[in-house]
Amino acid sequence: MANRRRFLSVALAAGSTLAAGELARAAADGGDDRPNALGAPLSPYGSPSPFERSVVRVATTLTPTKFSSWDFTPLQDLHGTITPNGLFFERNHGGVPEIDPAEHRLLVHGLVDNPAIFTMDDLRRYPPVSAIHFVECSGNGLTEWSKPTGKTVQLTHGLLSCAEWTGVSVSTLLRDVGVKSGAAWVLAEGADAPLMDRSIPLEKMMDDAIIAYAQNGEALRPEQGYPLRLILPGFEGNMNVKWLRRLKVGSAPFYTREETAKYTDLLANGQARMFTFVMEAKSVITQPSGGMQIHARGERAISGLAWSGRGAIRRVEVSTDGGNRWSAAQLQEPILSKALTRFVFPWKWSGEEAVLQSRCYDETGYVQPTLAQLVRVRGVNSVYHLNAIQSWHVASDGTVTNVHA
Amino acid sequence: MANRRRFLSVALAAGSTLAAGELARAAADGGDDRPNALGAPLSPYGSPSPFERSVVRVATTLTPTKFSSWDFTPLQDLHGTITPNGLFFERNHGGVPEIDPAEHRLLVHGLVDNPAIFTMDDLRRYPPVSAIHFVECSGNGLTEWSKPTGKTVQLTHGLLSCAEWTGVSVSTLLRDVGVKSGAAWVLAEGADAPLMDRSIPLEKMMDDAIIAYAQNGEALRPEQGYPLRLILPGFEGNMNVKWLRRLKVGSAPFYTREETAKYTDLLANGQARMFTFVMEAKSVITQPSGGMQIHARGERAISGLAWSGRGAIRRVEVSTDGGNRWSAAQLQEPILSKALTRFVFPWKWSGEEAVLQSRCYDETGYVQPTLAQLVRVRGVNSVYHLNAIQSWHVASDGTVTNVHA
Repeated sequence: MANRRRFLSVALAAGSTLAAGELARAAADGGDDRPNALGAPLSPYGSPSPFERSVVRVATTLTPTKFSSWDFTPLQDLHGTITPNGLFFERNHGGVPEIDPAEHRLLVHGLVDNPAIFTMDDLRRYPPVSAIHFVECSGNGLTEWSKPTGKTVQLTHGLLSCAEWTGVSVSTLLRDVGVKSGAAWVLAEGADAPLMDRSIPLEKMMDDAIIAYAQNGEALRPEQGYPLRLILPGFEGNMNVKWLRRLKVGSAPFYTREETAKYTDLLANGQARMFTFVMEAKSVITQPSGGMQIHARGERAISGLAWSGRGAIRRVEVSTDGGNRWSAAQLQEPILSKALTRFVFPWKWSGEEAVLQSRCYDETGYVQPTLAQLVRVRGVNSVYHLNAIQSWHVASDGTVTNVHA
Repeated sequence: MANRRRFLSVALAAGSTLAAGELARAAADGGDDRPNALGAPLSPYGSPSPFERSVVRVATTLTPTKFSSWDFTPLQDLHGTITPNGLFFERNHGGVPEIDPAEHRLLVHGLVDNPAIFTMDDLRRYPPVSAIHFVECSGNGLTEWSKPTGKTVQLTHGLLSCAEWTGVSVSTLLRDVGVKSGAAWVLAEGADAPLMDRSIPLEKMMDDAIIAYAQNGEALRPEQGYPLRLILPGFEGNMNVKWLRRLKVGSAPFYTREETAKYTDLLANGQARMFTFVMEAKSVITQPSGGMQIHARGERAISGLAWSGRGAIRRVEVSTDGGNRWSAAQLQEPILSKALTRFVFPWKWSGEEAVLQSRCYDETGYVQPTLAQLVRVRGVNSVYHLNAIQSWHVASDGTVTNVHA
């Protein structure tokens, strides 16, 4: 009841409670404010409301063109855990190819007994598998190593999205073509002009990898790899090869450009970590977050996302004082392995300065580190795999900004 | 391995295995068929591939306009369990109103201690709740009572979709305004021109009802009730009032037009069932389904959807001989209460006639009935709540058609 009273006092402050006359007018059983316009007709494929036109992907300013670039999912405007297909973050190295699925082929060869080419129809005859998984670019947060840079959670964390993927188990396909002894790695190659390719451990391919043809129920979107994309749950986004046209089984890594010049982690001592595939546990508060303005004191839920490339999230804690005290947040069901998990934390803002943080624990017992802890191990030369705790400063006027705390 | 050989023999028949020369050409490590066109740039909000332009909602032909009508989700083209927002089925009685969320209000009044008006900002300050639930029009399948009519699963079952909904628990809101003793029903009213309204038992409202503002992560689509929709998990679609502007708490049902002239079930004896809210357990095979053509013999997965308004699906069985023999299908995780559950069943088509059926069991032990069993209880005057087993006939030439078997 205390909770109830508190909220109503807020409502009062906002002028939401009603005098008798207002109530009669507001009730409007056929009254004055009755809407009377005929609405829009049915449509074959729906679009967001025109009032939502600001909820869009925003491109990085770090690349000279939009053809080998990336854009960010507007996490501050999203809810729950599923990312709608139109807002799933983009990353490509030669633009989005237009591929006719009737012409598309997947070649599976190398150390296999029966090299084969699969049409889309061939793949659709296999038993479909579906699973909800996040995809995160390992460069998510790359601007945040040395100083707080992204003004919004879209720019600090928006190379992150989550969808229900449907396709064929890679393990089923590889069992069908027969993997030869000595096989240990698989090259996956895309059908974009740069032939983007990565080496993937055979063990991962036989575990939970999916050759996906659908995303949130419908065919993949072009920018997500239409008509075929490799999904490697929990592995860095770049390895989830889009426009997949080839799997070549081999005995060793293929040392593609994405594994030598890129997607390695330069340490303080000048050595580089290679093959850092797994996205470690991470969380972030999306509501409230950088660039927002809190307009009124009182109760207001804090909400955010947690995820781990190693399995399910077990616990999320929230601090409102920059990490001195931590309290458990509530996790929303379903809590799925290698998927976004939504957390919610009740908060009452009294009008004082605050620093909001979240940290998560995954099922392996791993705890999301502070930035200082991460930098101690990794230095500040790194581009990829920043999974540190994010801090949002709330000023006494309600302005929320990105800080390192 | 038997399984593997069988699939490869199919691949062989389809010409998918490779001679050495073909393999060299196909492998194309930088070879002849290397794609070399720069693709499309990043985009703020994505759209489906132009090759998917036939995957759309289809309107009924039973209404004279598209302003008080319905259209169907293309279940035959969808995968997994989430319906993408653009393809979620539509039903409205006065077109889709365009509502400015800054102007929208929700009035809560009647038998409450503190009548109140909520803005969208007020509602967003509450702790958000998210849940994945289906919505099914109780008129889904209305053409199928007496003879098989819909040519595709889109037309027989497509008034069915499933999404992750986010909003405020109705129970939280009602506790805040304080429900008076004697309260038992709640009127929910929409802000479309017909002021579509329904009476809902208070018990349901206090159980799992949600005032949703988001669907699959983003704001509700206009045709789904932007900016607010009542979600009553498992209850007939019509009660999930869109463009929600008013909740009035009362002691008895309000007997709206939707409860007297419509949404009742006329029995054979001339009596009508009223207030039949729950959507009983139902399932349907979507792949293959009516209007499809099976082009090749051999292995091909059967796949479909099962759901129940009373909770989780426990078991789905498939018959390929018109209901003589039944075998358990595999259910895909996660299996959520009052949500679509995807089932998969391995099948080998030998080129003979077949009648494909599915039937489901929910957690209450309820078993989906045959049409004959349903008609014995309900007669054939009914419009709503047809949840009988669907039969698809496969002819020896591979043509799949809707039949009553």
